[in-house]
Amino acid sequence: MERVKARTLSGFMELLPAQQNQFERVREVLAGTYELYGFTPLDTPVIEASEVLLAKAGGETEKQIYRFTKGDSDLALRFDLTVPLAKYVALHHNELSFPFRRYQIGKVYRGERAQRGRFREFYQADIDVIGDGSLDIINEAEIPAIIYKTFTGLGLERFRIRINNRKILNGLFAILGLTQQAGDVMRTIDKLEKIGEEKVKAILVEDFAVPGEVADKLLAVLQAGDPLGALEEFRGRDEGFDRGVEELTTVVRYLGAFGVPGDHFAVDLTIARGLDYYTGTVYETVLLDHPEVGSVCSGGRYDNLAEYYTDKQLPGVGISIGLTRLFYVLQEQGMLNPDLPTAPADVLVLPMTEDLSPAIAFATACRAGGVRAQLYTEPKKFKAKMNYADKIAVPFVAFLGEDEVANGVASLKDMRSGAQEKVALDQAPGWLKEKIAALGAGTPIRETDRE
Amino acid sequence: MERVKARTLSGFMELLPAQQNQFERVREVLAGTYELYGFTPLDTPVIEASEVLLAKAGGETEKQIYRFTKGDSDLALRFDLTVPLAKYVALHHNELSFPFRRYQIGKVYRGERAQRGRFREFYQADIDVIGDGSLDIINEAEIPAIIYKTFTGLGLERFRIRINNRKILNGLFAILGLTQQAGDVMRTIDKLEKIGEEKVKAILVEDFAVPGEVADKLLAVLQAGDPLGALEEFRGRDEGFDRGVEELTTVVRYLGAFGVPGDHFAVDLTIARGLDYYTGTVYETVLLDHPEVGSVCSGGRYDNLAEYYTDKQLPGVGISIGLTRLFYVLQEQGMLNPDLPTAPADVLVLPMTEDLSPAIAFATACRAGGVRAQLYTEPKKFKAKMNYADKIAVPFVAFLGEDEVANGVASLKDMRSGAQEKVALDQAPGWLKEKIAALGAGTPIRETDRE
Repeated sequence: MERVKARTLSGFMELLPAQQNQFERVREVLAGTYELYGFTPLDTPVIEASEVLLAKAGGETEKQIYRFTKGDSDLALRFDLTVPLAKYVALHHNELSFPFRRYQIGKVYRGERAQRGRFREFYQADIDVIGDGSLDIINEAEIPAIIYKTFTGLGLERFRIRINNRKILNGLFAILGLTQQAGDVMRTIDKLEKIGEEKVKAILVEDFAVPGEVADKLLAVLQAGDPLGALEEFRGRDEGFDRGVEELTTVVRYLGAFGVPGDHFAVDLTIARGLDYYTGTVYETVLLDHPEVGSVCSGGRYDNLAEYYTDKQLPGVGISIGLTRLFYVLQEQGMLNPDLPTAPADVLVLPMTEDLSPAIAFATACRAGGVRAQLYTEPKKFKAKMNYADKIAVPFVAFLGEDEVANGVASLKDMRSGAQEKVALDQAPGWLKEKIAALGAGTPIRETDRE
Repeated sequence: MERVKARTLSGFMELLPAQQNQFERVREVLAGTYELYGFTPLDTPVIEASEVLLAKAGGETEKQIYRFTKGDSDLALRFDLTVPLAKYVALHHNELSFPFRRYQIGKVYRGERAQRGRFREFYQADIDVIGDGSLDIINEAEIPAIIYKTFTGLGLERFRIRINNRKILNGLFAILGLTQQAGDVMRTIDKLEKIGEEKVKAILVEDFAVPGEVADKLLAVLQAGDPLGALEEFRGRDEGFDRGVEELTTVVRYLGAFGVPGDHFAVDLTIARGLDYYTGTVYETVLLDHPEVGSVCSGGRYDNLAEYYTDKQLPGVGISIGLTRLFYVLQEQGMLNPDLPTAPADVLVLPMTEDLSPAIAFATACRAGGVRAQLYTEPKKFKAKMNYADKIAVPFVAFLGEDEVANGVASLKDMRSGAQEKVALDQAPGWLKEKIAALGAGTPIRETDRE
């Protein structure tokens, strides 16, 4: 038979079983946390009509899209979860209740240049709260609490949520006479962390005709140690600015009530998150020990989710985690908790008798007790069986020989410590369940290089 | 602004929030059950290289495939989870341990003619056990136990697992001199349930030159009340046949030990499950009250999972549930348990004070206690708020007014009974958790038309 070489496309993450289990754990923390905050799971199609998916897209994004025809249909794979959400809310508007809170953890597709750590198929994990006509500011204050709960739930401590408000930036530009070059100024300021204050000022002055003293003023305000204090002198001069300061103040004030410790968030007036979409609070989240990764959870407030599909005003606020990339980074950095079991089963049941019925009954009892049990019945030597147990890293092996069966016990071997004990058959599932719960009690991530 | 009409492609299931929650429950039962049996979750790419995905395909399947190019790459969307598994096992053979037990619940794509209840994007939920060179028969006996546990876990009682062995069919054909027309005979027999014995015999005799008395004999054996008994007279005449009978006998014998009640399975010698792939035990599962749906869980034993990619012999046994179609049918038949909560949250927290901090603190405490809490702060009239609670069908509403805050309590309203009581703030999360657990205790499916 002529054979085809088995391969997986480059840019497509395909994990080995142990890694996949680690990935699932991360995903479960995300889903579980989102649900605690009252977000409902959604699952929209991967394929949409091109004219629907590309109603808004353009430029770089459009080039990356997987687009094709099937029969007469012009189709495309979703490249994010926001456009499908906009379509969903516009399409099902009458059947939904607002505020509509949904989360979606799903694969999206972008035909980017293949590159280490860049993926063409990757999971995004999004939450959004959508209002019908209006949406209370408290929703913007709750988002950092969700980010905080998500990341601490994963086991991370060394991260910081950065918050800004787009109305403040736009207002500042207006007050300083920079409205015309606002986009250019914003893009330049976005480079502050990368190229430093001096170069940013040079670009502002030389390329975008910002007067030197205005650039100084702007840079001083945006980088002030007490940002909210530094904004005071501009108040009363621009309505949008004043509203932005008020919103940001409200968000910061309620963060404490939401349980976010002060050292886990910071107002950062340099954050913009793109030019067009966001209109209020914006968020970024950085890993303090891995700033090179950039923001691992970003988003913000927008005024018009679905303007390309409906004339209904649908303001919202949302955040997105690039889950595949985050997982890749955590793995590369050795931050995945190695103590958590990654085996497909909690116990490997090894029958040592001709009649397999007692072993089958034991495995069945384990499963009824919520213990993941695998029955191993391949006719191999004992050593090969134990080798298998080692390789799948199963935490416990249960031996059921003539002696055990006769005495109504199972010999349970803890594969980590090597300790072995006989436990009554009816006690064994509970015994195992308890040990397994203790083994799995840690968080998916363990920070190793704390400062 | 020019608007695009929001729409979802036909043949693509997109659920409203309450339905999606019902779907998630079904999916969780499947995943949870598979894990209890020691299957590890896998997640392979939706897109594969066409030459890899189509190494085996042909005919009807190939026509249905979503295939396209991106740059220089000839790509296709997976149309099942078996081919990606074969690729995965061939590609990662050295890094896996055998028997390799994996489950995958994922979307697959087939551009079928759009039709009510037929989907172009649908979930399959597959489990497979793959051996390296050989695989013990006990794995074939365990599969019906997994089917049984899965379906009873969903809440179904009225189903039956039908079992056959392909070696018996092939052996019978050899013994009766029908090997040459085996494929035609098998396809015809497959129609027994649909067109009846008389017509099947006519086709066998007239179209496929089966002698009348041979057709009678074959039909008598295949439909015998005691199938294993009826096979006795053929023993000792064909090696494959004898092995098939032995395997089937072993599988049936161990089914009891695996906890499958006798009335939930039946040997059915007419089951073939396609012509080429399966080589041993084959399975079908039918809903007794909905035979028109056909098999809702099918599969079997095969000898060569990945022969298109590797010369390694990789026998296995697996089953597949067409999850999207199953869910669609359950919904159509009104079998989804209406008593289970489908709201995004367990409790809707309604602050009735100017300062939102107490309400925020209460919601935070609920979440810390594992209760899904949504804070509702939109400036709406009381009636509109209660309307919202009704529409999302939240089971509990928590009122926090001046009185409650002053007295350190929350007024908790049970939205089903209308009963309302004041519970101390520190007791409330536990109080809610208990009630919620009771509400969610049922199975996702409730059979309504038991005979």
